[in-house]
Amino acid sequence: MTIADQLQGELAALLGARFSTKRADREQHAGSETFHRAPPPDAVVWPQNTAEVSRILALCHARRVPVIGWGTGTSLEGHALATHGGITMDLGRMDRIRDIRAEDMLAVVEPGVTREALNADLRATGLFFPVDPGANASLGGMASTRASGTTAVRYGTMRDNVLALEVVLADGRIIRTGSRAAKSSAGYDLTGLFVGAEGTLGIITELTLRLHGQPEDVAAAVCAFETLEQAVDCVTATIQTGIPMARIEFVDAETARAFNSYSGTNLREQPHLMVEFHGSGESLRADVARFGEIAAEYGGLGFDWAESAEDRSRLWKMRHGAYPACLSLRPGATAVVTDICVPISALAAQVAAARDDIRAEGLLGPILGHVGDGNFHSTLLVDPDNPQELAAAKRIANRMAERAIAVGGTISGEHGIGVGKRGLMAAQHGAAIGVMAAIKQALDPENIMNPGKMIPDPV
Amino acid sequence: MTIADQLQGELAALLGARFSTKRADREQHAGSETFHRAPPPDAVVWPQNTAEVSRILALCHARRVPVIGWGTGTSLEGHALATHGGITMDLGRMDRIRDIRAEDMLAVVEPGVTREALNADLRATGLFFPVDPGANASLGGMASTRASGTTAVRYGTMRDNVLALEVVLADGRIIRTGSRAAKSSAGYDLTGLFVGAEGTLGIITELTLRLHGQPEDVAAAVCAFETLEQAVDCVTATIQTGIPMARIEFVDAETARAFNSYSGTNLREQPHLMVEFHGSGESLRADVARFGEIAAEYGGLGFDWAESAEDRSRLWKMRHGAYPACLSLRPGATAVVTDICVPISALAAQVAAARDDIRAEGLLGPILGHVGDGNFHSTLLVDPDNPQELAAAKRIANRMAERAIAVGGTISGEHGIGVGKRGLMAAQHGAAIGVMAAIKQALDPENIMNPGKMIPDPV
Ligand SMILES: Cc1cc2nc3c(=O)[nH]c(=O)nc-3n(C[C@H](O)[C@H](O)[C@H](O)COP(=O)(O)OP(=O)(O)OC[C@H]3O[C@@H](n4cnc5c(N)ncnc54)[C@H](O)[C@@H]3O)c2cc1C
Ligand SMILES: Cc1cc2nc3c(=O)[nH]c(=O)nc-3n(C[C@H](O)[C@H](O)[C@H](O)COP(=O)(O)OP(=O)(O)OC[C@H]3O[C@@H](n4cnc5c(N)ncnc54)[C@H](O)[C@@H]3O)c2cc1C
Repeated sequence: MTIADQLQGELAALLGARFSTKRADREQHAGSETFHRAPPPDAVVWPQNTAEVSRILALCHARRVPVIGWGTGTSLEGHALATHGGITMDLGRMDRIRDIRAEDMLAVVEPGVTREALNADLRATGLFFPVDPGANASLGGMASTRASGTTAVRYGTMRDNVLALEVVLADGRIIRTGSRAAKSSAGYDLTGLFVGAEGTLGIITELTLRLHGQPEDVAAAVCAFETLEQAVDCVTATIQTGIPMARIEFVDAETARAFNSYSGTNLREQPHLMVEFHGSGESLRADVARFGEIAAEYGGLGFDWAESAEDRSRLWKMRHGAYPACLSLRPGATAVVTDICVPISALAAQVAAARDDIRAEGLLGPILGHVGDGNFHSTLLVDPDNPQELAAAKRIANRMAERAIAVGGTISGEHGIGVGKRGLMAAQHGAAIGVMAAIKQALDPENIMNPGKMIPDPV
Repeated sequence: MTIADQLQGELAALLGARFSTKRADREQHAGSETFHRAPPPDAVVWPQNTAEVSRILALCHARRVPVIGWGTGTSLEGHALATHGGITMDLGRMDRIRDIRAEDMLAVVEPGVTREALNADLRATGLFFPVDPGANASLGGMASTRASGTTAVRYGTMRDNVLALEVVLADGRIIRTGSRAAKSSAGYDLTGLFVGAEGTLGIITELTLRLHGQPEDVAAAVCAFETLEQAVDCVTATIQTGIPMARIEFVDAETARAFNSYSGTNLREQPHLMVEFHGSGESLRADVARFGEIAAEYGGLGFDWAESAEDRSRLWKMRHGAYPACLSLRPGATAVVTDICVPISALAAQVAAARDDIRAEGLLGPILGHVGDGNFHSTLLVDPDNPQELAAAKRIANRMAERAIAVGGTISGEHGIGVGKRGLMAAQHGAAIGVMAAIKQALDPENIMNPGKMIPDPV
């Protein structure tokens, strides 16, 4: 499918050089961080404000041309690929921070603002925005995938930290959802509906985000364990004790090896936990001490405390570099990244089963995760030119998903569905898929909003 | 509208004595805690399981008979009145606690379980369910109004504490939403959609709830202030400092007077804050001390600490009895209860404006609220036989709502819309109302689920 000349003319008239059908621009929006591939979109647009987004959607709606939102393109399930052709709408130029309301601990931002840009801006206020996927993603993209990351165990996910949205619907209508109040019982939770909708219901053009106070004191450490089971059991025990962790991350021995070779660190090639505590003075010390006792019970092999802010930043930079580090274990490989999330009591068995499964298939697949939420990933490294390996990785990913569902967990803790997990939606949701499809149909009857993602095709 | 004989026969065959058209049963489901009135429903049903709920809805759907869910009937905006006739479905016999999964800090309950029943059951586990409206409401009703209460400032609302649902849709289809995992990015957030839907999209037949650890130590106190402004400013300052309050409640001088006459207490007839801290040892003491300093800055007149568990329970019993206490200020009166919620920076001005407005209209209307969230209520006492007074109360309520919207707040912090606030939905949501109506239409095309509530009538 290509877009008609008339639409091209209208978009060019509206956007000038911010409408492009150039090969280089299209190719730039054809990539994916993982193994997913699709042809480039037919065109790319870079709107600068809500009115433009509205006008573009109205034009595309009238001609039934797909529109795919694009933040920074770091999503992992082929979310932003133009699988059905159409126009990719890059929100990168809507990157203004519109308002910081420090007294109300709120920020109002455009969707193209990245989390790092927002936090840089907040530094002087004593506030910060906690949601922290490894990538420097856009806040519109993070809302759209319901992203989380290392700090969700304490501060929640995008579901918890988006208070209000401005959204442009498929036909160009502009709506506002939510409010600036801390809570509301006024009508259906539309904010919650658009958060996690992966651009299938509309384009987010403004977000009101909840901010949090920068912690007075922070303590962070890394600690090795003899076995994967001990490390994970330590997490379960910690969570059940209710110690307020700000971060509690697991990496397996292979990931530790990847860090050493990629970041020049000197970790034991064993499972590790990386932890962080936010608090102040006495109470922080008490939390740290209680965690220390639990870790010792599970054979934790001595803590390496990151004393200074620089040490901590180095620690989390290493953690956030896990993806390229893992990829570097097998140069030239591409990745199938898994993302299940299970009730905490099931975590240890699920991690062990995943590891055994990966071994049995003979693949390299380091495991790591935001285990305080029961969420972990495996980065399954496959040769992009070897269909058998890709098939094996998909088998592993599917079995992980099935095992998660069997214990009441979810096929995606934070990455979302995109094209990659669409086939698993029925197993996860059963008849509720019908409700999702009905909502999609009601809000996007022409199926132009990121078609082919998440929700089954209309019949 | 009355229900056809054939449907009566089918329901009686299905439910036996758990289907009733007796006047007494119908009258029992015609009441409302506030001024709202409507004729009784045509019949009442008491299903005992999901299959029965499904069968009843399928029958009513086929004949386009309204079905109104009923938990304990404590909602304040006429939510559960049979304004369009039809059948009230009382979920009170679905009151089993199906599963307590202490390791995962989850409870699985039927909708008729009340929060007190659940917490009684949890006592031995070291866990509790924190959401706490004053009334001993049903968990299905609380989810449906997106209820909160005194502890929301720390533990969140029903939005934050419902993980998964079983729902029967208008046509009898049974779906499951959410999962037992702490977070999920798998598809639209249907759990969030049904939480707060006030029974307009389906009947909740099972809830999976997040539990929390009972705090090791608790400290609670009540403290008087010279002026309303000082008390509210003290709250704003406290919230902005980030001290983790478990409860921070405001009551004005009139409410204090109501407590004294109704509960035989001996409070100064001045504005008060009632606070509670959850924590352990040192860190709890540090929080208490910091709050004490802030309160002193704002002229807090000495704390009355509730030392024992009994004292604390007496304190919160008094707070939870505020509604009957306020009503008792004017025997024979009925109430219009307001419920706005605003950004914390706007709180003091909004409370003062409400007080001035109530005075100007010459009504009695004590003010109190969950001010840590920016949420407060006035209980406007009116003579049920005096239409002028009712009109004055509604004017006040509308102006409060308009002022809340003007500062980016919400017309309902926790009570919901029902019939009472339906006329304000357009002012709150603008074009987003169209999205809510489209969702309602998609899930309940015959408009049988609690018609006439929250969402505009289909055109
Ligand atoms: C190294 C690495 C580590 C990662 N770690 C994490 C992690 O810890 N946690 C986590 O949650 N994710 C993680 N991710 C995945 C990714 O960063 C997140 O999915 C992120 O939320 C994507 O944001 P983005 O701006 O790149 O969105 P994109 O990839 O550009 O888009 C994502 C989806 O949102 C839609 N979209 C984008 N903007 C809008 C908008 N304004 N309105 C409507 N729809 C829109 C797109 O159409 C697409 O469907 C990681 C990725 C990488 C590469
Ligand atoms: C003294 C007093 C104090 C209160 N304080 C608070 C407070 O602090 N915070 C607060 O949030 N509320 C408060 N309320 C209001 C009330 O308690 C809440 O709205 C509560 O959530 C209602 O629960 P219920 O079981 O009584 O529901 P009901 O009144 O029976 O029903 C409420 C709505 O939910 C629907 N419904 C009920 N059960 C189901 C189900 N299973 N499936 C689908 N729909 C269903 C009904 O149709 C109706 O629309 C107070 C009320 C009183 C009387």
